[in-house]
Amino acid sequence: MPSELCETLGIEFPLFAFSHCRDVVVEVSRAGGMGVLGAVDVRSPEALEAELKWIDEHVDGKPYGVDFIVPNNYAGKGETLTSAQVAATVSAEHKAFARSILESHGVDTSDLTDERFSRGSKIGRNIRDEGAQSLLDIALSHPIRLIANALGTPPAYMLERSKAAGVPVAALVGSAKHALKQAAAGVDIIIAAGTEAGGHCGEIGTMVLVPTVIRALRAAGIKTPVLAAGGIVTGEQMAAAVAMGAAGAWTGSVWLTTPEAETSPAVKEKMLAATATDTIRSKSRTGKYCRQLRSAWTDAWETEGAPRPLPMPLQSVVSDTAMSKVLKLANGGHAGAKELASYFVGQGVGMMNVTMSTRATVRGFMEDYLTAVERLSTSVAS
Amino acid sequence: MPSELCETLGIEFPLFAFSHCRDVVVEVSRAGGMGVLGAVDVRSPEALEAELKWIDEHVDGKPYGVDFIVPNNYAGKGETLTSAQVAATVSAEHKAFARSILESHGVDTSDLTDERFSRGSKIGRNIRDEGAQSLLDIALSHPIRLIANALGTPPAYMLERSKAAGVPVAALVGSAKHALKQAAAGVDIIIAAGTEAGGHCGEIGTMVLVPTVIRALRAAGIKTPVLAAGGIVTGEQMAAAVAMGAAGAWTGSVWLTTPEAETSPAVKEKMLAATATDTIRSKSRTGKYCRQLRSAWTDAWETEGAPRPLPMPLQSVVSDTAMSKVLKLANGGHAGAKELASYFVGQGVGMMNVTMSTRATVRGFMEDYLTAVERLSTSVAS
Repeated sequence: MPSELCETLGIEFPLFAFSHCRDVVVEVSRAGGMGVLGAVDVRSPEALEAELKWIDEHVDGKPYGVDFIVPNNYAGKGETLTSAQVAATVSAEHKAFARSILESHGVDTSDLTDERFSRGSKIGRNIRDEGAQSLLDIALSHPIRLIANALGTPPAYMLERSKAAGVPVAALVGSAKHALKQAAAGVDIIIAAGTEAGGHCGEIGTMVLVPTVIRALRAAGIKTPVLAAGGIVTGEQMAAAVAMGAAGAWTGSVWLTTPEAETSPAVKEKMLAATATDTIRSKSRTGKYCRQLRSAWTDAWETEGAPRPLPMPLQSVVSDTAMSKVLKLANGGHAGAKELASYFVGQGVGMMNVTMSTRATVRGFMEDYLTAVERLSTSVAS
Repeated sequence: MPSELCETLGIEFPLFAFSHCRDVVVEVSRAGGMGVLGAVDVRSPEALEAELKWIDEHVDGKPYGVDFIVPNNYAGKGETLTSAQVAATVSAEHKAFARSILESHGVDTSDLTDERFSRGSKIGRNIRDEGAQSLLDIALSHPIRLIANALGTPPAYMLERSKAAGVPVAALVGSAKHALKQAAAGVDIIIAAGTEAGGHCGEIGTMVLVPTVIRALRAAGIKTPVLAAGGIVTGEQMAAAVAMGAAGAWTGSVWLTTPEAETSPAVKEKMLAATATDTIRSKSRTGKYCRQLRSAWTDAWETEGAPRPLPMPLQSVVSDTAMSKVLKLANGGHAGAKELASYFVGQGVGMMNVTMSTRATVRGFMEDYLTAVERLSTSVAS
């Protein structure tokens, strides 16, 4: 597709694939789209270095990107605390509640000690400025072509270092107000993410958010390209977004059921069986509204009398620690753990019914896109 | 647009306009779309007769429709109660809470007596089978070309009488499961209404719901045409829906700010100023989840300790009685009443920023639609 954005980034098809899995990143970029590796989940800066080195060796020189989550607000921001010190502030009530959910589903929690919770979570480290800065240094030492950030205007150091390195910066927004703010801060690509999206999302539906954001930017004389996100798992939805003026689609969920993805087998199985009504937007996983598979775990946090979710990143310390144990058991066939198992995914999960390779998924997007173009053109043919 | 649906219905452009205002219905149908009069809000069968007679005299023989709300479930269903008897079951707590909200905004509620509440609401009468049947008889005695129903599979009498009269029946759905059920029941046109929609709506975003419903129907070998609804206020969104396989767009909110609409001036002013984040999906208005302008009234029902909304139609008895008083005062300039004023509207309200005639709005849809077709075609031109 001959667009300015494709030319700037050196890609053929403006399909952006967010994934925590390096194989997905490589396969999408090699197929003509752009893979974007989620860095928030890496164990350490060294682990990110190893991931990007592997991508460089396998991506055939095709462009790819790295994605961060540096929220404008989180517990402990501006304080010089170790992530273990932050994790230690998690209340006994929340840890006890997490244990009680697991126990009521037949999971032995004797090893879910306070000490284990106090090790913190990976997201707990990587969303903090000091954690993100060290990851950014590593990312920019590789030939990446995109930096993306979620949950607020990218911090100044991210914008400055990326610009100095000639790497465009994209940022996710859930409203026109935030789009205007981020464009003013110097963001190069706005990702309008609707409420259908997996992971953190706002309340406005993609069908409304995309044209709303584009109109607000253009009315302010801002030409920043806008990618559509939120529930997009097919090329016809991507075409719909482009018909409304989007420069392409930002996707995440659709890669989770590919054989390449890192998704836990028990979760993958649930995703393939899920319908569009099987997700929930809840604060119970990370402390901010986040869409995920509805499960016995998320249900428990929604019941009356459940503790209120803690602010980010404390709630992730609670839920990641518990869910890590749950997923191990679920993959081993534990029935109660299977009921509890959950992961971030958007409403598009209802259309993800078969396992398809990453490459075939990209090809499917391209074919569906053309079908939709043809369908829309035909609608006005006399 | 040369589609099968347009041919069946005798329209030029598959833009369906739901409105409680006969002028909007006439103007949309005369401009090439299809106006559909909401019957749930009429005072009596005689009032509906007068509305349809007026439409017949002004619509130049163009096709139009009538819309009902006959929910599958409501309080008092199957019982032979007068609507006053139903209204009398509203708890004292709910009436007292409604009065307290108004009083805390400087509204004198001395005339909001129990007797006034017990008069019931129009929706309280018209959603009940006996009310809807008498309205349906009247509707089918006019040259209507469409019957539509919301909140569940249309009752058997609606499907049978409409079919006998050769009038297609459309029904709104919020999930693929309901679409399959309604198509099996004999519904001729499925309206997939996403969570962005004003009025009653589900949780699935339009961008996901439309292709999900279409795929589910086609996979079952069902060819029923699907209209897209939910947040659609522009022709480019309509084109996006058609790119995904929709046969057209079902709209409602966009007509509320036309000069022809019945909307209260105070509400119209709030809608023109509102952004996409200024709506809320809440049970506080009708007892079922319903999207509306967020206001001090809706906020009050969301606070901790507020009474739980009553089942339909009892909650409408509470809120319609109170809101009717609020709107009168708000139109007169009462500051507290203006803060309370609310009405059903979708997230597309954020793009409804200027008052435009109904005719110009239809023309705008047609132009925007063509722009979107051109934009999408260009995206694949080499």
